[in-house]
Amino acid sequence: MSSQFGQLFRIATWGESHGGGVGVVVDGCPPLLDLEEADIQKDLDRRRPGQSDIVTPRKESDRCRILSGVFQGKTLGTPIAILVQNEDARPEAYSEMETAFRPSHADFTYQEKYGVRNWQGGGRASARETIGRVAAAAVAKKALRELAPSLEIVAYVKSVHELTAEVDPSAVTMEEVERNSVRCPDEAAAARMIDLIKRTRADGDSLGGVVECVMRGVPAGLGEPVFDKLEADLAKAMMSLPATKGFEIGSGFSGTRLTGSQHNDAFEMREGRVHTRTNRSGGVQGGISNGEDILLRIAFKPTATIARKQHTVTTAGGEIDLAARGRHDPCVLPRAVPIVEAMAALALCDHALRQRAQCRR
Amino acid sequence: MSSQFGQLFRIATWGESHGGGVGVVVDGCPPLLDLEEADIQKDLDRRRPGQSDIVTPRKESDRCRILSGVFQGKTLGTPIAILVQNEDARPEAYSEMETAFRPSHADFTYQEKYGVRNWQGGGRASARETIGRVAAAAVAKKALRELAPSLEIVAYVKSVHELTAEVDPSAVTMEEVERNSVRCPDEAAAARMIDLIKRTRADGDSLGGVVECVMRGVPAGLGEPVFDKLEADLAKAMMSLPATKGFEIGSGFSGTRLTGSQHNDAFEMREGRVHTRTNRSGGVQGGISNGEDILLRIAFKPTATIARKQHTVTTAGGEIDLAARGRHDPCVLPRAVPIVEAMAALALCDHALRQRAQCRR
Amino acid sequence: MSSQFGQLFRIATWGESHGGGVGVVVDGCPPLLDLEEADIQKDLDRRRPGQSDIVTPRKESDRCRILSGVFQGKTLGTPIAILVQNEDARPEAYSEMETAFRPSHADFTYQEKYGVRNWQGGGRASARETIGRVAAAAVAKKALRELAPSLEIVAYVKSVHELTAEVDPSAVTMEEVERNSVRCPDEAAAARMIDLIKRTRADGDSLGGVVECVMRGVPAGLGEPVFDKLEADLAKAMMSLPATKGFEIGSGFSGTRLTGSQHNDAFEMREGRVHTRTNRSGGVQGGISNGEDILLRIAFKPTATIARKQHTVTTAGGEIDLAARGRHDPCVLPRAVPIVEAMAALALCDHALRQRAQCRR
Amino acid sequence: MSSQFGQLFRIATWGESHGGGVGVVVDGCPPLLDLEEADIQKDLDRRRPGQSDIVTPRKESDRCRILSGVFQGKTLGTPIAILVQNEDARPEAYSEMETAFRPSHADFTYQEKYGVRNWQGGGRASARETIGRVAAAAVAKKALRELAPSLEIVAYVKSVHELTAEVDPSAVTMEEVERNSVRCPDEAAAARMIDLIKRTRADGDSLGGVVECVMRGVPAGLGEPVFDKLEADLAKAMMSLPATKGFEIGSGFSGTRLTGSQHNDAFEMREGRVHTRTNRSGGVQGGISNGEDILLRIAFKPTATIARKQHTVTTAGGEIDLAARGRHDPCVLPRAVPIVEAMAALALCDHALRQRAQCRR
Repeated sequence: MSSQFGQLFRIATWGESHGGGVGVVVDGCPPLLDLEEADIQKDLDRRRPGQSDIVTPRKESDRCRILSGVFQGKTLGTPIAILVQNEDARPEAYSEMETAFRPSHADFTYQEKYGVRNWQGGGRASARETIGRVAAAAVAKKALRELAPSLEIVAYVKSVHELTAEVDPSAVTMEEVERNSVRCPDEAAAARMIDLIKRTRADGDSLGGVVECVMRGVPAGLGEPVFDKLEADLAKAMMSLPATKGFEIGSGFSGTRLTGSQHNDAFEMREGRVHTRTNRSGGVQGGISNGEDILLRIAFKPTATIARKQHTVTTAGGEIDLAARGRHDPCVLPRAVPIVEAMAALALCDHALRQRAQCRR
Repeated sequence: MSSQFGQLFRIATWGESHGGGVGVVVDGCPPLLDLEEADIQKDLDRRRPGQSDIVTPRKESDRCRILSGVFQGKTLGTPIAILVQNEDARPEAYSEMETAFRPSHADFTYQEKYGVRNWQGGGRASARETIGRVAAAAVAKKALRELAPSLEIVAYVKSVHELTAEVDPSAVTMEEVERNSVRCPDEAAAARMIDLIKRTRADGDSLGGVVECVMRGVPAGLGEPVFDKLEADLAKAMMSLPATKGFEIGSGFSGTRLTGSQHNDAFEMREGRVHTRTNRSGGVQGGISNGEDILLRIAFKPTATIARKQHTVTTAGGEIDLAARGRHDPCVLPRAVPIVEAMAALALCDHALRQRAQCRR
Repeated sequence: MSSQFGQLFRIATWGESHGGGVGVVVDGCPPLLDLEEADIQKDLDRRRPGQSDIVTPRKESDRCRILSGVFQGKTLGTPIAILVQNEDARPEAYSEMETAFRPSHADFTYQEKYGVRNWQGGGRASARETIGRVAAAAVAKKALRELAPSLEIVAYVKSVHELTAEVDPSAVTMEEVERNSVRCPDEAAAARMIDLIKRTRADGDSLGGVVECVMRGVPAGLGEPVFDKLEADLAKAMMSLPATKGFEIGSGFSGTRLTGSQHNDAFEMREGRVHTRTNRSGGVQGGISNGEDILLRIAFKPTATIARKQHTVTTAGGEIDLAARGRHDPCVLPRAVPIVEAMAALALCDHALRQRAQCRR
Repeated sequence: MSSQFGQLFRIATWGESHGGGVGVVVDGCPPLLDLEEADIQKDLDRRRPGQSDIVTPRKESDRCRILSGVFQGKTLGTPIAILVQNEDARPEAYSEMETAFRPSHADFTYQEKYGVRNWQGGGRASARETIGRVAAAAVAKKALRELAPSLEIVAYVKSVHELTAEVDPSAVTMEEVERNSVRCPDEAAAARMIDLIKRTRADGDSLGGVVECVMRGVPAGLGEPVFDKLEADLAKAMMSLPATKGFEIGSGFSGTRLTGSQHNDAFEMREGRVHTRTNRSGGVQGGISNGEDILLRIAFKPTATIARKQHTVTTAGGEIDLAARGRHDPCVLPRAVPIVEAMAALALCDHALRQRAQCRR
């Protein structure tokens, strides 16, 4: 299905950037978890527009309502429906899109696939779609407290354009990440990134970069052999995010430049249990977590919407130069951070339930 | 499920490296396709061991038998079961594995997950598991001839260790790829790669590299918004292969160093239809194919099995130095090429059927 | 998943009888279908409470809102979210349920399964849950106009308690069914049924009965061998409705009293195509539709909620006599009719899309 | 998918009556269960042809081989592939079927659906397909010993044609069922049934009947609200069997003739836990097991294959009279008994794993 994720902790998102709202239905959630709207709101606030001067100025409070599945502050085990209404939609800003395809957006491909599209904004391809993911992940995190009590998921901006941060994945905290508006825990790099983003926006252009995500305290045994390897499901989770062009786990592409004797992670006993000396595997071996930190990097392309005129074609087959008018982020990276965390939580929660079902662990 | 792939063209693989054999059941295949064992054998022969002097010497003829779903040379529409028996299993070569975990293999994680493992070889984590994928993909290719008649899928070795080939993805042919044993269409680079692989094996070590895969003639409209984006399903397909550590589509990680005005693919009319001038999107926009070439890169780590002694732990919690005895590839890249093609075919076939179902295209 | 139905036309329902509302998300709907809220409202009005003097007096307007997936009156191909808010919930009528389990309701089993339940009404086990099914089926019917243009689905009350109607399934129309409040097209039987229902309610008791459903104009070829036989998916669809205890197709249980020579449906040519002379198969052979009328019968038990005192146990393990206070139907049959039609439409729509995907028919 | 059943304990069957064999792949099985071929063979022997003088004389030893997923007598948690080869196929007995459609068989519908069919026997519509189900269920029963240690599943022939047995579902044992060739624990009725089957076969005709199945010791809490109600999945399981025309749980169709006050199952405390005084619910309330016996009845039509000439049409559109030559059962009931048990085990095992995943019970 186009809009469902997960086998046991299954979410179904819906909604367009311009329409009645966006939302999600979470099916398969364990019962008796404490859950209230504030738990979800906290995460939605981290991804919402207008939170700083380097993101889109669209004004959305993104207030969520839980419509079902929770009773007297506890999850019931039945579907949890969560709704966020659109408030600041300005369809008039998109009137050119009725007849023209924006470069590197999904206008053309939606039209080719469906023969129709909601041209008043990005429709399902808008970043507003990720609200449902973040809301569902707030629920998943509640389940994970029981399923994987030691788990910590921290994502952060690793690079913007040519600027790369120095970060220690084994120690970085969410507090350090949230300290600045670009969500980069290396303060010096963050300052340069913020400056670059502002200059680039002033220049009518946009930027991309890399988000890194570390999962610490993952129980060994999550993931499955063959198709549903943990790294395969994490790759799908991340590459399903808008604007992603690449995914790495552990040594990634740079690992191809090592020999086996350099790359292999020797096992040793430490603190009474099996550990690896190095972690080029990135916490996963043969598709299954080994208890070490899982480390991912995800490449986000520069925002497709830019203020400059660009060449494109019309639905009638003509060619024109088009300039964007809709509000947009000059760089998606800061707002991508909580969304990457959300996808990591959804994938881990689903696999933890699968593991409990099959292996009672 | 651990061992199923695809929503409509769904395959279920089974089998271990040491046991009765390996195989696959293909469900959902369109009826009335011409299919015989020779169609499948051709692809299996490209992945089988012992085909050249730079791959594992294990002797397996990998002869396949179609047990169901085909009648008088035509597919019936019912499940197609394909079986390949193991011939040259040598479990005695793995006796140390009963009590020790090989570094960067799946021995430890299987044991942690299941509490049991088939230690006479790699079990499901063995590359033999990919036989089922390649056999199923041979069937998928038959279906794709009807679903996407212009489609061509070509994969090849782009790099081994530090050696990188020059290849034009828009023109490269499978014949060029098959011309040498390393499956790199840049003959000069190929010669250096082969030489390096031989020297590294002699040195008791192993190598990794990058496979590039181009899909030309993909119809526009394949893939779905949100979770089942075409690039997300391709990422899952590729990251489900043994030894993969990274995935890129189009501009990939290097695209994060461009600005939006540099990265965006302007649309233009060409040969009577909408084309992009550049292809940094890699043939997919908003999760849906746009008709341009789809271009992927997949990182494969160096083979974990090496001849040198390595430090590791035993099932009893002791520490030892272990040297491999099982036969293995010094570099998985040459044999990964047909497997990457297979996963691309499986993902495209599934999405083409999904598109026919929903959009009648 | 507990709350999803369909493989390609997949619906996810949510909501409890007492809470923010109920709704459904429809994923996989073909694009470019005409759809507006009035199309859905028409069907919701047939199932809503308070529509006649033989159903529950709960006052719910059941006004639906389409929140996504439709643009300028056309389906977009993306998820269609439909919301109905609860208006006349009276949780105070259920206060006894906090501590007691109503006989033959789901209070006890929900508590056993989840360790928690929404005791302010029936929760997910309430008939209000079927709103999502009926709304989704209104969309499915739109898709079926294109997928199976000759299709007609008509359901009606075949019996209430000992009263059985005479109906010709090959000719009965929805207009005949809607002519009276019990939805039985045999007017004489209907009058007796209505009278019996009123007398029974006055007596503090309740009634069950049988709904019959005929599908005319079903294309041959729908359904699949083995597990997803059309009759198996119809059985699941119907037995997933609250209060159902039995399902028959074609000759049903009475067919077990015939011999093969009496039961078999001889084939003959008629009007230029293959027909059966009789239809004991009920329109399905080997799990696949043969083009004849599909005929189902579904048994609904008497409503569990009755005004009389009944013996039961409390959550604390005590025993008490309990009388219902919540509003309820003395006989679910009249309101079950549109819901049975809805499930038939959902099952057929899903199989029609599956057939188009695999067999291009 | 046409040939898959179960969400967590998922089986994929394959194979035709005439071809290389039949089999099944079981995915999602818990690890560390004791399993050997003899465990499976025992159940296969109960369903195989030629076991008595009232079933088909086709000679098949139905010897199974486990090809994967088991190591040193324990399940590995990875897919278990089980193969049974066809031995006594006589395709020449079916030559008329190349050009004619047998009445009430699947020949016509397969041809309409797929445009092709394996006419050398019944293909996937043959009862041989059920071998995969029985083999998979033998594995499921092993898992159920851990998941539901008190569970007992007993099925038996309740009626053949007009002959009905007296059986106490709360006490009947498999030993009593296996005491005679018709698998009816009422010895007097069994003798009359056997006699009737022999006379009917001599007369060139066939018979149908009803199988009853009781599940005792089912834990409370299995099954899910809404679509995956336990009775809905059991109905699907049973109605997916060849030749089934009806399904009842608990009071079934006869329950529609009771009032609510007669039908409701009062709760009481007994032996320290909540029980119902009566069991008209059939062990399931609101889709979830309540710990009482689950009681099902399944209607099987008379065998379609009879020795008498029957009117039918040819693939060319002509009309002919056709007499069967293939070997067949004069009454499927005796061999249906172990298959009904198998489907019950598969459905319960899947729901027990789902319950463990979501509710840790």
